[in-house]
Amino acid sequence: MGIDLQSILLMLVVVLVLAKTTAFVFNRYGIPGLIGEILVGILIANLTIGDWSLKGALDLADGTFNYDLLSTLAELGVIFLLFAVGLETKVKDLTSVGRSAMLVAVLGVIIPFVFGFIFIELYESNVEHALFMGAAMVATSVGITARVIKDMKVLDTKESRIVIGAAVIDDILGMIVLAIVVGMASSGSMEVGSVVTITASAVIFVLAVIAFCAYGVPWITKKVEEYHENKLLANPDYVPYKPNMLSVAIATCFALALAAQYIGLAAIIGAFLAGMIFANGAFAWNLDGRIDAINVLLVSFFFVYVGFMVDLSQVSSNVLMLACVLIVLAIISKYAGAYIGAKIGERGSPEPASAHIIGIGMIPRGEVGILVAAYGLRYGFPLELYVVVVLMSVITTIIAPPLLSRAFRKKYPPEYLITADDRI
Amino acid sequence: MGIDLQSILLMLVVVLVLAKTTAFVFNRYGIPGLIGEILVGILIANLTIGDWSLKGALDLADGTFNYDLLSTLAELGVIFLLFAVGLETKVKDLTSVGRSAMLVAVLGVIIPFVFGFIFIELYESNVEHALFMGAAMVATSVGITARVIKDMKVLDTKESRIVIGAAVIDDILGMIVLAIVVGMASSGSMEVGSVVTITASAVIFVLAVIAFCAYGVPWITKKVEEYHENKLLANPDYVPYKPNMLSVAIATCFALALAAQYIGLAAIIGAFLAGMIFANGAFAWNLDGRIDAINVLLVSFFFVYVGFMVDLSQVSSNVLMLACVLIVLAIISKYAGAYIGAKIGERGSPEPASAHIIGIGMIPRGEVGILVAAYGLRYGFPLELYVVVVLMSVITTIIAPPLLSRAFRKKYPPEYLITADDRI
Repeated sequence: MGIDLQSILLMLVVVLVLAKTTAFVFNRYGIPGLIGEILVGILIANLTIGDWSLKGALDLADGTFNYDLLSTLAELGVIFLLFAVGLETKVKDLTSVGRSAMLVAVLGVIIPFVFGFIFIELYESNVEHALFMGAAMVATSVGITARVIKDMKVLDTKESRIVIGAAVIDDILGMIVLAIVVGMASSGSMEVGSVVTITASAVIFVLAVIAFCAYGVPWITKKVEEYHENKLLANPDYVPYKPNMLSVAIATCFALALAAQYIGLAAIIGAFLAGMIFANGAFAWNLDGRIDAINVLLVSFFFVYVGFMVDLSQVSSNVLMLACVLIVLAIISKYAGAYIGAKIGERGSPEPASAHIIGIGMIPRGEVGILVAAYGLRYGFPLELYVVVVLMSVITTIIAPPLLSRAFRKKYPPEYLITADDRI
Repeated sequence: MGIDLQSILLMLVVVLVLAKTTAFVFNRYGIPGLIGEILVGILIANLTIGDWSLKGALDLADGTFNYDLLSTLAELGVIFLLFAVGLETKVKDLTSVGRSAMLVAVLGVIIPFVFGFIFIELYESNVEHALFMGAAMVATSVGITARVIKDMKVLDTKESRIVIGAAVIDDILGMIVLAIVVGMASSGSMEVGSVVTITASAVIFVLAVIAFCAYGVPWITKKVEEYHENKLLANPDYVPYKPNMLSVAIATCFALALAAQYIGLAAIIGAFLAGMIFANGAFAWNLDGRIDAINVLLVSFFFVYVGFMVDLSQVSSNVLMLACVLIVLAIISKYAGAYIGAKIGERGSPEPASAHIIGIGMIPRGEVGILVAAYGLRYGFPLELYVVVVLMSVITTIIAPPLLSRAFRKKYPPEYLITADDRI
């Protein structure tokens, strides 16, 4: 095999050992591990001691950095990450979360998008950059949110149900916004006709897959079961021969990612929708555990890559100023959108959920905002703003857990938490 | 991310869908799935209809084939495959299998090696080619053998225990032979001194890891447990914080693969030994299931790559002749070595195991022979002989299962099999 295996293995070992160790230590002290992995990426890209640089030490024998492999592994990692998020997203959760979650999600998308868009328009009046920034402000990280709520053992409070439901809807809305923005950026067109076409194809693609989840998957499952039952009735010794569902899931994931690319959407949208197709059978086929194993291998590369793209020489006082403004905007806009949504949604409820807790719970952007900005890089989103988005995502992800923890503890004292824990 | 994601996804989808579907159908009819995957690789490399070629359709946008990615995924796939084989190889199985398995293994290595070496020396008097061919003739595929025995439900017969034990030892001897051959080929030296150095470093590396498995791992496990127990005694609310063992295992796997490369051995030897380190905890940490999930994603790329390297335009009548001779030699030499080993080992036993069954059980070469030849390609092993080895591996893997099945059924009639099945 004509590849430089030694350099490849060296890169894999250095990245994995640094990323996993840092994530382990960060988690130990309550900081999400992905923050540590992003920092490792920043370190790899920027650590220079005299003539020696860490990035240089990981070069291939021909002197080029293992850039293609790192970014390919990062792409595969983020595809499997979104597939895993999709696996946790059941269509019936989406349809049963009710008015409050929907309102929290929709207002929690619109207000941050508008804030991000207007801010960049005012700053440099570039519609494309403004669109990407708006999109990067939108999505709540369902992974981060769910992990915090789970760790706090408040999974069965009303606030938690609304936050998780809204975060899931948020993800889908975020995907649609990203699809529209990427579509507009790649067609290079801002005409009404092309916006309508892209919106329509994004919405149709998403709705078609959701409809397939709701009607197609149960139908196929039933037919396959009937087939095997009839065979068994005819022959009691019949042993059904079934495929490895993990193979089917992986192939579907790549196929829908490719399909999304073909129609001009982001590959991760396809991966997310592919996950939703398998959500109902995920437990029975042990797909969540097995996809999680693949993610243990691959996802670190995505977060390291995210950090790797941060060129510290770009971090001027200007960038830091921009980042501070944007962080404040990101927190205020998401909190406000979710708070107002919750207030309206819970109006008239006998036991209204705390709009404050829900507002805080929606703040962490986690990987999704970064993802949008990383996609933006391909379409001329400037590296400077990318760094701003990474800082925004990292900071919102770091500050949300302690704030959320305090808010929950105020409404639900420890006795409650212990009871809740026992019930889970 | 500056990579051609669309072409990459297209390649992944085409390779995975073709490979998994073919393997599924082949398995259905009792043919090992890897044979189907190799055929898919041959198809991708060679299918041309008029101006259109399947390989060309999978090219990157710049007109080059996704060769680097395919071979990198293949490398990662085979590293995880050998890691998984190592996970199933416990040191205590190695030390407790007894005289018979050891004799079967050793004679089953020496005789095929000598046959392969002498044949190529006579054919073209090239010591390096002859060494690689000898090494390619050596290893029994423990995966194939174990799968056949498991499917036949004769796991607890004496013959099965000897065959599996011998196949495991065979793997290790095969690794050492490969290490020596690769070391000699890469140093380009046939001097006695360098052979001794390489043999010594291979043997020391393997023995050091085995010793670490036998003494280091239990010691570390005990120390970690004691640490947590003491903490728990001091504070009843203490919750131990432990790393994800899959992360540790993956990092160790890559690190030992890299270490093996550095000292001039094959990367897969390191991966195999890394697997052995985790063999005792594999079940408790669910490592086997989770590594298996990673292999579902990656291993197909290795077998497809194996087929992809077979250029059908190389298959002259000369190659076919060579392949026929080599297949006969591979079958006779392995059968003879294992048969003689079993006869000697079982001499004086009150219920001697059938040397005939053991001889047949050791025939399938599966992936290991191909692996050796694929490594050889890097060191000047000719493509023509590579094709011969692939044909030899494929044929021995296909013919062994039905022969083994018949031999077992003759000694153990179906009534026995049913009883055995009930006991498992």
